[in-house]
Amino acid sequence: MAYKIAALDKLIAELSRLPGLGEKSAQRITFFLLKTKTNLCEDLSQALLDVKAQVHNCTRCFNYTDSDVCAICKDANRSDEVVCVVEEPSDIIRIEETSGGFKLKYHVLQGVLSPLDGIGPDQLRIKELIERLKEEPIKEVVLALRADIEGDATCVYLTKLIRSYNIKVTRIAHGVPIGGHLDYIDARTLGRAIENRIELK
Amino acid sequence: MAYKIAALDKLIAELSRLPGLGEKSAQRITFFLLKTKTNLCEDLSQALLDVKAQVHNCTRCFNYTDSDVCAICKDANRSDEVVCVVEEPSDIIRIEETSGGFKLKYHVLQGVLSPLDGIGPDQLRIKELIERLKEEPIKEVVLALRADIEGDATCVYLTKLIRSYNIKVTRIAHGVPIGGHLDYIDARTLGRAIENRIELK
Repeated sequence: MAYKIAALDKLIAELSRLPGLGEKSAQRITFFLLKTKTNLCEDLSQALLDVKAQVHNCTRCFNYTDSDVCAICKDANRSDEVVCVVEEPSDIIRIEETSGGFKLKYHVLQGVLSPLDGIGPDQLRIKELIERLKEEPIKEVVLALRADIEGDATCVYLTKLIRSYNIKVTRIAHGVPIGGHLDYIDARTLGRAIENRIELK
Repeated sequence: MAYKIAALDKLIAELSRLPGLGEKSAQRITFFLLKTKTNLCEDLSQALLDVKAQVHNCTRCFNYTDSDVCAICKDANRSDEVVCVVEEPSDIIRIEETSGGFKLKYHVLQGVLSPLDGIGPDQLRIKELIERLKEEPIKEVVLALRADIEGDATCVYLTKLIRSYNIKVTRIAHGVPIGGHLDYIDARTLGRAIENRIELK
């Protein structure tokens, strides 16, 4: 449904391009913005420009930062010996939210291997990871990639590469989620959970 | 969860203020915007400013428009004799989407009477409606307001006022939605549907 008011239709179209927003949500937000007496429209417009201008990738680990090297890389309380490899910066947040207090350092691959989408090793930050393995006192690389075919293939590729530098490679466990009933778990996950069973002592 | 990157946290906070978006959706959108290779960030930023600068209320009916008088008020194919009173401009769209082809003109109240929220007749566009009743050849006013206590009270108030000008007042029917099973209809709606039953001939 076009409103035949150019600026209105344009804002609805732009909002509809955001993930998770359909045309109806975009309409609701647009009418909310027109009605609100706050400066939300102007504030949001500025915040969008600021984020593009100020936020970029950390030169070392490719996490997001507004300085040269990100806060995690600069954190002296974290061990330099364990590096956790993730797909996206948002994965770092998810890991930091766990109560484990693992104090890891990270390396963002910016994707996983996916030949069908034209993403090979050169499209990922693998070269930069290898440079870090040579320069930093890294003793273990934890692979925290997704558990699908692309994630698995990337893990196999990285394991071969990293072990050639005599560095330990581990992968986060995949299995039944905490609180999960076996009734609701898919067969592949359950199969993996049985395969990777842990001895109780 | 704050990311400790000022521009990033700011954009997430601003997006969270939009209706229907929680913090998690705002995070997802922010990371999407950082990753996308399109100009969406800049386009959206500009669209937000444009909508505020160009879109305002029609001076006659208070629908949204980017000119002085809105497209519906200017439409010569619509009768000047029937005016439909709605709460918000978005209600006009909903009515225009119906297949009835009613060719109505509209008047946007910009709310309903709600004494508890400090909204009395002076906060609504009732004075402007009365002016139109005096100046335009209006023969019927259709009230398409919501069916709750505030909507009902507003209808009672407007009916008294409009009838004093010897103009017919009607209200849209409330009842069982098309395709609705009686099992799933609340008692108040069903009661209203029985009360307003229509003779079949």
